[in-house]
Amino acid sequence: MPIDPHAPIEITAFEWVPPFAEGFVRDLRPRWACEEMDLPYRERLISAIKRPDWYFEEQPWGQVPHVRDGEIAIFESGATLIHLGEKGGLLPRENGQARASVLSWTLAAFSSIEPMTFELGNVALFSRGEEWATLRKPGLVAALGKRLDRLETALDARDWLADAFSIADIAMVTVLREVAREGLLDTRPRLAAYVERGEVRPAFQTAIADQIRHFAANAPARAPQGV
Amino acid sequence: MPIDPHAPIEITAFEWVPPFAEGFVRDLRPRWACEEMDLPYRERLISAIKRPDWYFEEQPWGQVPHVRDGEIAIFESGATLIHLGEKGGLLPRENGQARASVLSWTLAAFSSIEPMTFELGNVALFSRGEEWATLRKPGLVAALGKRLDRLETALDARDWLADAFSIADIAMVTVLREVAREGLLDTRPRLAAYVERGEVRPAFQTAIADQIRHFAANAPARAPQGV
Repeated sequence: MPIDPHAPIEITAFEWVPPFAEGFVRDLRPRWACEEMDLPYRERLISAIKRPDWYFEEQPWGQVPHVRDGEIAIFESGATLIHLGEKGGLLPRENGQARASVLSWTLAAFSSIEPMTFELGNVALFSRGEEWATLRKPGLVAALGKRLDRLETALDARDWLADAFSIADIAMVTVLREVAREGLLDTRPRLAAYVERGEVRPAFQTAIADQIRHFAANAPARAPQGV
Repeated sequence: MPIDPHAPIEITAFEWVPPFAEGFVRDLRPRWACEEMDLPYRERLISAIKRPDWYFEEQPWGQVPHVRDGEIAIFESGATLIHLGEKGGLLPRENGQARASVLSWTLAAFSSIEPMTFELGNVALFSRGEEWATLRKPGLVAALGKRLDRLETALDARDWLADAFSIADIAMVTVLREVAREGLLDTRPRLAAYVERGEVRPAFQTAIADQIRHFAANAPARAPQGV
């Protein structure tokens, strides 16, 4: 079991998040990677409601995850995946097509899919009910849908984006889980099956259970505003 | 001069784009990287107006850049920067803090700044005049402004994000140039100076001149719709 208080790898995560964010916070990515590669890690939990001032020195936006590996500090979930993947094997270190494909698809998740899913989250969740969001949603869903159709074509009959399971799949499955909530995979069965292949992996299951393990004990007495 | 028709590195770019996109297409990133590291590259130009069907087999969204390096094919500008940076020295290969910082800031450009600048481009350019865009713009500009304030604080008095100039600066400067057009750097002098430090580099100047070199010869007789 990778969680080990004495491990050299440390993942910073939130001690509690509101229900809508449960299971979707981005420390899930390095946790999942560590589980897949059997890399022990320790947790450092901070408040999502009142981010500590000192934390912005380590992570410029006050977001999670932040990862330490011995003396090395790294932030942005994509960067943590690259670092951990090189360490544990989910990103081939040898300079060849296998490495190039994993890097291409990892960056595709962050640069070509997540910006649109991020905006869909704004429209469907954070700004829900605002006039601009109501007006914006159909066009955004259509544009994202076209992008997802291309992704489904590119995935073709493969199980994973870059042949073998890799950090690219950790990136893309965690991105696509968010659009699954909005029904965008209902008409895209190959993408839906791809996400499910990711979610049934024991490493994913352990990672998500560990992410939410401390939430009940740390829930505020009253739900905070504006989190 | 890195452009060399016999070079093993190939960068796919557009033969022409409309004026608003001139100097902002993302093949600028690997071109700039190649210039900085004196890596010769050849160009492969395709139509932006009618993307060739075969091209979607190489780049799932039909976008540029796509890069070949001998037998290796790679897409997404961030992935091309990582590949080229490791080859030529703008991303340290040794596993240490220098590498981790470059990776963190490179992914920060793509995951934490570009999604918001991308949406600002939608609001201020592509969907300009639509009701949702008019309603959306103030909140988006405010949110992006807060993010940029954090970035300015994090950059502090350094010239470059990860101490030495790196692929992280190629990523971040090319992202920030787009918000400069919208005036968002006018009140953020350290970020404005940072972008200028990038833009005055001879490698940037050569890269952008090479990017637009073929446009005049390939301009369509009549401006196309919907590009």
